[in-house]
Amino acid sequence: MYKAPVDEIAFTLKHVAGMAEALDAGVFGELGEDLVDAILAEAGRFATEEVAPLGDIGDRQGARLVDGAVKTPEGWRDLYHNWIGGGWNGLTAPEAFGGQNLPHMLHVAAMEMWNAGSMAFALGPTLTMGAIEALEKHGSEALKATYLAKMVSGEWTATMNLTEPHAGSDLGVLKTRAERRDDGSYRIFGQKIFITWGEHDFTDNIVHLVLARLPDAPAGTKGISLFLVPKFLVNADGSLGARNDLFCHSLEHKLGIHGSPTCTMIYGDGKFGDEKGAIGYLIGEENRGLACMFTMMNNARLAVGMQGVAIADAATQKAITYAKERTQGRAPGWSGEGMSPIIEHPDVAQMLLTMKALTQGSRAIAYACAHAVDMAHASKGDQARHWQERSSLLTPIAKSFATDAGVDVASLGIQVHGGMGFIEETGAARYLRDARIAPIYEGTNGIQAIDLVTRKLRLSDGAHVRGLIAELSEIAAAVGSTNRKGFGETAVRLDAAIGDLADASEWLLAALEGGKLTDALSGATAYQRLFGLVLTGAYLAKGGLAQAGDGKQDARIALCRFAAENLLAETGALKDRVVGGAESLAAARAALV
Amino acid sequence: MYKAPVDEIAFTLKHVAGMAEALDAGVFGELGEDLVDAILAEAGRFATEEVAPLGDIGDRQGARLVDGAVKTPEGWRDLYHNWIGGGWNGLTAPEAFGGQNLPHMLHVAAMEMWNAGSMAFALGPTLTMGAIEALEKHGSEALKATYLAKMVSGEWTATMNLTEPHAGSDLGVLKTRAERRDDGSYRIFGQKIFITWGEHDFTDNIVHLVLARLPDAPAGTKGISLFLVPKFLVNADGSLGARNDLFCHSLEHKLGIHGSPTCTMIYGDGKFGDEKGAIGYLIGEENRGLACMFTMMNNARLAVGMQGVAIADAATQKAITYAKERTQGRAPGWSGEGMSPIIEHPDVAQMLLTMKALTQGSRAIAYACAHAVDMAHASKGDQARHWQERSSLLTPIAKSFATDAGVDVASLGIQVHGGMGFIEETGAARYLRDARIAPIYEGTNGIQAIDLVTRKLRLSDGAHVRGLIAELSEIAAAVGSTNRKGFGETAVRLDAAIGDLADASEWLLAALEGGKLTDALSGATAYQRLFGLVLTGAYLAKGGLAQAGDGKQDARIALCRFAAENLLAETGALKDRVVGGAESLAAARAALV
Repeated sequence: MYKAPVDEIAFTLKHVAGMAEALDAGVFGELGEDLVDAILAEAGRFATEEVAPLGDIGDRQGARLVDGAVKTPEGWRDLYHNWIGGGWNGLTAPEAFGGQNLPHMLHVAAMEMWNAGSMAFALGPTLTMGAIEALEKHGSEALKATYLAKMVSGEWTATMNLTEPHAGSDLGVLKTRAERRDDGSYRIFGQKIFITWGEHDFTDNIVHLVLARLPDAPAGTKGISLFLVPKFLVNADGSLGARNDLFCHSLEHKLGIHGSPTCTMIYGDGKFGDEKGAIGYLIGEENRGLACMFTMMNNARLAVGMQGVAIADAATQKAITYAKERTQGRAPGWSGEGMSPIIEHPDVAQMLLTMKALTQGSRAIAYACAHAVDMAHASKGDQARHWQERSSLLTPIAKSFATDAGVDVASLGIQVHGGMGFIEETGAARYLRDARIAPIYEGTNGIQAIDLVTRKLRLSDGAHVRGLIAELSEIAAAVGSTNRKGFGETAVRLDAAIGDLADASEWLLAALEGGKLTDALSGATAYQRLFGLVLTGAYLAKGGLAQAGDGKQDARIALCRFAAENLLAETGALKDRVVGGAESLAAARAALV
Repeated sequence: MYKAPVDEIAFTLKHVAGMAEALDAGVFGELGEDLVDAILAEAGRFATEEVAPLGDIGDRQGARLVDGAVKTPEGWRDLYHNWIGGGWNGLTAPEAFGGQNLPHMLHVAAMEMWNAGSMAFALGPTLTMGAIEALEKHGSEALKATYLAKMVSGEWTATMNLTEPHAGSDLGVLKTRAERRDDGSYRIFGQKIFITWGEHDFTDNIVHLVLARLPDAPAGTKGISLFLVPKFLVNADGSLGARNDLFCHSLEHKLGIHGSPTCTMIYGDGKFGDEKGAIGYLIGEENRGLACMFTMMNNARLAVGMQGVAIADAATQKAITYAKERTQGRAPGWSGEGMSPIIEHPDVAQMLLTMKALTQGSRAIAYACAHAVDMAHASKGDQARHWQERSSLLTPIAKSFATDAGVDVASLGIQVHGGMGFIEETGAARYLRDARIAPIYEGTNGIQAIDLVTRKLRLSDGAHVRGLIAELSEIAAAVGSTNRKGFGETAVRLDAAIGDLADASEWLLAALEGGKLTDALSGATAYQRLFGLVLTGAYLAKGGLAQAGDGKQDARIALCRFAAENLLAETGALKDRVVGGAESLAAARAALV
């Protein structure tokens, strides 16, 4: 059973991702280390004792649609109410609406733990938080007054309605339409698919944020508006009014996250109300809906990255436990009685170390991204811009690298379990099934790579990425100047990997400068992985260098060395694929006829 | 829907794996190319039109245990009888027992197609064929006379009973016991788990091959005997007699291959018959059961490798079809109207090319292994030994590389489908669920790597592997001496990769020579993957060089180039992991405390 690794999470936040310096510098105001530790401990307790035990039943029972209502798995409604009762839903939300305005770093750490307990459960609140952010930044005061406090408390949940059958990665072609009403509100008509937690029995109302197109809107992405469309209309006194004209038509039958209802939502079908059309309220300006969405997109992507970290950690814990208990054969050098625990076999140990390194690397990247979000929030002028750029740059890497790691680590976790890994009751297979969606939704990892290469890499004309690479080189140099033999070849391997990253970055910047978009895009995915691996190596090294005084430094150095001497060996090949990918791909298309 | 790629399969058999030369040299007797083509065409038709359409229902309904009997999915019983009616069960079986004694190369090609249609369905006959082989080689004439013809015709199926809860990879500790009876038969007592198709409604009888231990047997693997234990005893006239004392206690609830009943079998519980104990008949000699198993193990491992090839091919076909139909966004350079098919996006094209290259590489390795099996069978003296060694060497690579490819390709297939890939009805997810068992059963891929490094690599004191590497170098040289520009950097990349393989092989041979077993085992998995990648590159090149006159040479060269310039970039890193893995792993164990 999953046990939240509170100590390791706290260490990574403070000593790798920059929270210790931020606390010292007073970036988080009154917030002190004691309170940070207390919050992490309680989040960890909740995840371990309350969420995780209900993960399996959620997977087995799934969400079911019965007579138009969604029935959630046994115990989940109470779990949700306990969870919002703890104030977790409003952790980062503004105090004016009942939130706690705590750092995003704490939030991602807590999200990791809840997702590790049950990704299907934690996914719902993630959407609500995104909607809170969009509404707070772009909503009218009237809308905020009516909806925001209840969304922050969790009394109502929220959804994001983007996708339509023909409009997934490309939202420019969506067809859901909005018609203006005389009172300033709108009527919404259309079908949305893949709507996470679009209908459920946790709360009395559900607030849908829906992208739709006005009759006179320009074509493409510049003609999309964002609307707030509640399941139940809200009376002037805040009480619930009439049922709005929308409903959940069906649930998807998915590979994983069974407990999370994935809904097809129908708006304006005439099923409810006197007049056809779901009543909606504009958020932000007409035709500027996509911009509203994008303000929250970065954080939502990081949230999905946390799902990757979460599953990777849970799968790793499970596999290590099994590998220590299960005995089979005699490993070379095993001097104990009888069969050795399978963790003694070199191949099993390597799988577990790979799992651990990918988990910890993903975690560090994601937390560093959250640190940048917090710093940008707390800074002004050039500093704010610096940290804004840092979070922008790290977001696609955190999303893609962590979610790929989630899949890879979960798959290795099955392998470590042998035949038992294929049996559903063991629980290792669920991690793979759940993890598999994360590289896809909230922008596929291919889309992240396009974003990374065509937008993030060019921030400040490439100066930002160069600055980050220089920071990583300092870590490698610091490893080189220690006398700890435990680091092995870390310094030299890390330095070489950083060199590969620098070369690939310069090549891409030159290609983009020269207008060679196809060339740049052909290497985008390889570059994204290269970046993630180098950050993994560097952040593991930073962790190994840290003097946390917790007696775990040797173990951290050992993991860092493993990553440097094994995982980083791939960076040269990835650089080659960035630099030579376009020509190779152009020629290879002949094989796809 | 899967369509058997009969042309590509025939091409690979003939021009890459060596069948054309073997046919020319009369290795297969009277068998001519026309008959080969006709058999492949009919196997392909059966897989495409009869097996594949029932794959989904098998997954959805699964096998169910009702009142002690296993109910198979709708339509599967008829499918099985149509399949044995076509004579497919006895394709390679001896003519004396009703088989067709055809080459193993044809068999693996046909197996690929059936597994691509439904791995859960094709798995059952695979076990029967293994049992036929074991019985034919080691069984008494009386046993053969009673059982073999019916197993060859498929009137009865067979199973292999190895695993027990505490004895998986390590069979030496199994506890099922056998007691001698006065009439020369035995009584069997014990529990076996993970018994594939251990119970079903296809046939009237099921022949279980069971590993068990006699009371006076030595400890460990040298005290295991193999018994034939029929579900129903057989009367002297061949008719079915009393129910034997064995039954299926339960079915596993698995990640994939739902249509295949995975049984816990109980022997000798007293549920049937007057006296406790399932009646069994010794195959081979007492305490020599594991040797009997091992004679068929190589072919069974290759058969599992075919599952990897099969799933990879089916997943690739599905993804390419989708990527050509689904439009989204505008790819760079796209000049058509509206959105481009997603296959035009560089990232999607690269995923598809990777899928294609891994599929074709795995196929070529597996077919080359089957070719070696056939050649060994048809040769004498040194030649027989040469081909025996070749099949021994290639078997762990074919099993592990192809099954890893099955998982990786199926996972990429989901990614290509985007959100639709996560929806079960799409069918892409089933491929990943089914594929995930293949790297585990019939010896985990970690076990394959141990076998490859500690046994296969050292055949003829390393002369065999050196000879194979020299053959691969000739392919690289042949590419280098063509004037076809389409090969791009293939020659130089392939040559470098072969160099990495040669270096890693020599390093391992020296380590083993020096008794450094831990060192060798630490790099075993990396070496196995390195070998598979190099063979992939070389065999794709061999295919590209072949003058088949079918108008597909340019496409084959393009795929070969893609693999050489992209996938082979990893070989340097893998060589490093072989050479430096042990020291790195020893140090890293501190991270697993």
